[in-house]
Amino acid sequence: MAGTDTSLAIAKAIPLAPVIILVGPQLGENIGMCARAMLNCAVTELRIVNPRDGWQNPAAVAAASGADAVLEQAKLYTSTKDAVADLEFVLATTARGRGLVKEIYSTDAAAKEIRNRNAGKMQKCGILFGPERTGLENDDVAFANAILNIPLNPGFSSLNLAQAVLLVCFSWLSAENPFRPEAISTEMGDTAPAKKDEIEMLLAHIEDELVKGDFFRSPNQKPTILLNIRNFFFRASPTQQDVRTLHGIVSCLTGKRTWK
Amino acid sequence: MAGTDTSLAIAKAIPLAPVIILVGPQLGENIGMCARAMLNCAVTELRIVNPRDGWQNPAAVAAASGADAVLEQAKLYTSTKDAVADLEFVLATTARGRGLVKEIYSTDAAAKEIRNRNAGKMQKCGILFGPERTGLENDDVAFANAILNIPLNPGFSSLNLAQAVLLVCFSWLSAENPFRPEAISTEMGDTAPAKKDEIEMLLAHIEDELVKGDFFRSPNQKPTILLNIRNFFFRASPTQQDVRTLHGIVSCLTGKRTWK
Repeated sequence: MAGTDTSLAIAKAIPLAPVIILVGPQLGENIGMCARAMLNCAVTELRIVNPRDGWQNPAAVAAASGADAVLEQAKLYTSTKDAVADLEFVLATTARGRGLVKEIYSTDAAAKEIRNRNAGKMQKCGILFGPERTGLENDDVAFANAILNIPLNPGFSSLNLAQAVLLVCFSWLSAENPFRPEAISTEMGDTAPAKKDEIEMLLAHIEDELVKGDFFRSPNQKPTILLNIRNFFFRASPTQQDVRTLHGIVSCLTGKRTWK
Repeated sequence: MAGTDTSLAIAKAIPLAPVIILVGPQLGENIGMCARAMLNCAVTELRIVNPRDGWQNPAAVAAASGADAVLEQAKLYTSTKDAVADLEFVLATTARGRGLVKEIYSTDAAAKEIRNRNAGKMQKCGILFGPERTGLENDDVAFANAILNIPLNPGFSSLNLAQAVLLVCFSWLSAENPFRPEAISTEMGDTAPAKKDEIEMLLAHIEDELVKGDFFRSPNQKPTILLNIRNFFFRASPTQQDVRTLHGIVSCLTGKRTWK
């Protein structure tokens, strides 16, 4: 169970992550997978309302894959009302159409709303998730300020509990992610990028000439050298014009004036 | 397995979703869960390179929870090279630092890059995922233009295969999501929102009773108190049913059983 101390310390450095509240979860395994998904996203505060199989639950620990600290700090409640009592803003994760008048936030909009409430007002926010099969009851949704809807393929939108927690937590983390590498953009020239098999033909051409030229003095080195050559050409993202030029260069260097 | 035809039709309406390429996956169950995660996000083209347990795999179908069509259309390959041959841009999903020089894209940056390549140039893009335990080998990463890194809690970043596929596909879908509700939209129940004059009548009712109850001790305070009450009720955006209920509550509290 590696990394829990470190991971928790890192997560705690981010202020006011949302509280994840599981209402009536059925399987301990799913609670454990939720804990893992939370810690992946530096979200650490878990509350559990009336878990079907009681608490503590060894199946949860087994499924948490090292996110033990999230489970150890989880708090148990006997009502949704008590579980949200100290929170200032609560979202209920549910599919549309519960017949209650509520605003609906997408995961992106929810993430921004929570960030804004944290930044400006230091408000503590929570997100409710219902039981695996049935989802949240209206009696629970009524405790929320608004509904959180994960926008997916409307013809196939069923997620398991831990996946829903993962997407919501990841959206929150991504809204202001301190771990994100700089966004990268690349400039394309005025010709189309080469297809992979066009690059392979170039590599085959080069290898062929290198073999003829006795470039690979040691057979042991050949795979490593070819790997690095392949990596170079794929990384370079050549255009089709580049590939034609490179063929021409190879042909030129080997004394052949044309290549086809 | 409901909804597959519909879901696939919907997914196909989105042009040029990235191709998901699983290299050397071990468990059929994980392949099935990947197919489910893909279809959740309207991503339908799956390629499988050398699955450990062969193909077809009944365990994959069982775990796909209805995403059968993705599995049925999946293509089998014996090399990563063949699996990427017709693609113009390929990302390799891996943790940082494989010793190869590659640009690193976050999930967000990757999603935008793929959208941009689709929109402007109609380029077909693919994303490589390695085996469950070991991840991608350098021999596979070398086929990619760049590395895709999912930015998570660096102290606890281990995801299972299907979760990684889910986050990558969801980021792609979210970059330009046709299924997203308006940033904030309102779920209306079976009654319409109250008109402003209906709210004003409620306020008049309340004010009338407060005057009778000698609520406004100081005449100076009355306008401010009424302003705050009005602001509260307008901010709450009550439905017509809410307004009727609130009239009833006021009447009840003042000892009158009916109001009209």
